[in-house]
Amino acid sequence: MEKLKLMSLYTAFRKDLSFIEKELEQSVDSSSPVIRQASLLLLRAGGKRIRPIFVILSSQFGKYSLENVSKVAVSLELIHMASLVHDDVIDNSDVRRGFETVKARWNNRIAMYTGDYIFSRALVSIGEIDITAVHQLLAETMLEICKGEIIQIEYQQQIDQSFRDYLRRIKRKTALLLSSSCELGARVSEASPDIVVKLKRFGYFAGMAFQIVDDILDIISTDEKLGKPAGSDLLNGHLTLPTLYIKDEPEFQPFLKHSFDGTLTEEDRSKMLTYIRQSGAIEKAQFVSDLYLKKAVMEVESLPDGDAKKSLLQIAEFLSKRKF
Amino acid sequence: MEKLKLMSLYTAFRKDLSFIEKELEQSVDSSSPVIRQASLLLLRAGGKRIRPIFVILSSQFGKYSLENVSKVAVSLELIHMASLVHDDVIDNSDVRRGFETVKARWNNRIAMYTGDYIFSRALVSIGEIDITAVHQLLAETMLEICKGEIIQIEYQQQIDQSFRDYLRRIKRKTALLLSSSCELGARVSEASPDIVVKLKRFGYFAGMAFQIVDDILDIISTDEKLGKPAGSDLLNGHLTLPTLYIKDEPEFQPFLKHSFDGTLTEEDRSKMLTYIRQSGAIEKAQFVSDLYLKKAVMEVESLPDGDAKKSLLQIAEFLSKRKF
Repeated sequence: MEKLKLMSLYTAFRKDLSFIEKELEQSVDSSSPVIRQASLLLLRAGGKRIRPIFVILSSQFGKYSLENVSKVAVSLELIHMASLVHDDVIDNSDVRRGFETVKARWNNRIAMYTGDYIFSRALVSIGEIDITAVHQLLAETMLEICKGEIIQIEYQQQIDQSFRDYLRRIKRKTALLLSSSCELGARVSEASPDIVVKLKRFGYFAGMAFQIVDDILDIISTDEKLGKPAGSDLLNGHLTLPTLYIKDEPEFQPFLKHSFDGTLTEEDRSKMLTYIRQSGAIEKAQFVSDLYLKKAVMEVESLPDGDAKKSLLQIAEFLSKRKF
Repeated sequence: MEKLKLMSLYTAFRKDLSFIEKELEQSVDSSSPVIRQASLLLLRAGGKRIRPIFVILSSQFGKYSLENVSKVAVSLELIHMASLVHDDVIDNSDVRRGFETVKARWNNRIAMYTGDYIFSRALVSIGEIDITAVHQLLAETMLEICKGEIIQIEYQQQIDQSFRDYLRRIKRKTALLLSSSCELGARVSEASPDIVVKLKRFGYFAGMAFQIVDDILDIISTDEKLGKPAGSDLLNGHLTLPTLYIKDEPEFQPFLKHSFDGTLTEEDRSKMLTYIRQSGAIEKAQFVSDLYLKKAVMEVESLPDGDAKKSLLQIAEFLSKRKF
């Protein structure tokens, strides 16, 4: 039902999305069997292709050219994929979206290089765009994402951290790349500067809302829907918004300790998830996500009317209400 | 003595090199303590800064601008550094050039992200260059380097491989980035197309000669001069040109087996090195390196006369005769 709703949002751009999908597949078609298999594994694991969709929609506000849109969209989705492969090494994750990860199927070293390879492919794809600002923006975005990943490692297993620390982390982890997807889509179609700024801000706020929902789902959803164990964030040593609200409660301490030191039993994982779900933390986190959604919507509302605007509003709404 | 010779080659460009050195230091000055320390460790471990020197020299054949030269040189040296950090993870190396590696001082995950970070910094540095061809070339080079690294993993511990396999590996591992250093230096200073081609070919041939010498030194030099154990290539499962000549000799089999499975004693390492040194393989490999050097020199000879040409010839000569 939920998935259907997302698909219907995508219908209007089905042709362009499937063109981009083919380009994605071609661009990872390496002559090295390991890379090809690893990349295809990643591609098939799918994901929502939010970055491509944001590029397509943002490009509608200028002179839309599928060729340029595709190069940018492919590049951004590949960067996203590459960062996932490296994240799985950091988090020692064996499954993602129900699929075995590259590091699990092969090993950390292969995962490291598959990430590097996909990342280089991303650069080749965007390399054909003849706008220097595009390359600069992409480089700056990459840099911030990398910084974010190091900060994520530094904060791993750290209980003493603030809401500001969390927001800064998800900004770099998610919001920046979505923001850049919108900005690059607008720039590559030469939209007017004020539209570029609005779309960039929209992407940022929508990205913040999206990641908070992701972190909520990690607690309230099922292993099956998530394609990985619920509570994975905690098991990987990451405090997220819901858990920040309750991290100092005495009843929560044993769960936190055992999650972080890898000694949480299956029974206790279930108890822990119930505890968080009933603590009121989920509602508080959802409220923050909704605030970001409102900000995102405000940016879009002043954009020129049309299908693209309508779709952006629907997608923002979907991203922060979704159940998967 | 040898080092002095290299330094004197660099004298003419000392000011520009030290400007680039400062830019390198600034560009890795991260607010994250781990990244900053890891990057500075890498920078201080030094290396010969061959990529910057190639960029500087190649730029002399056009309209030289230190500002542009520096951006390109910093970018290429950072890409080289980033690939070294990732290589150390692949090879499980604890020392490089006498310094502890990032993966040894911290761990593989930190090394992976330090590499990613330095790599992003490289993109930011070159992002300011307003020539699309530069970005394309860099992206293609990166891609080939990544492919090369995966191929290196695939051939690790494989005895059944040819000279062609080896040459293809070192092309991607070393020659391409040196070739691109020359090409980008020439392009960024808008040298004429025929000069760009010659410099690109020079960089490629010089790079091939350089890497073969590197692989020879791994066998004939001392642990102290190398800053890592002599014979490391074999210990890491890599067959190089000298060892390809003797890999099928019966007397060499036990050395090869124990090197690859990690059971080579210190005494046998010493015997193995002596065996290779006395086998005639070093001379055969040096002969191939000299052939590449000659090709490199031929490319340079038809370039316009001047200090830059003279320096390129001296450096090519140095790179293939060096003892460190």
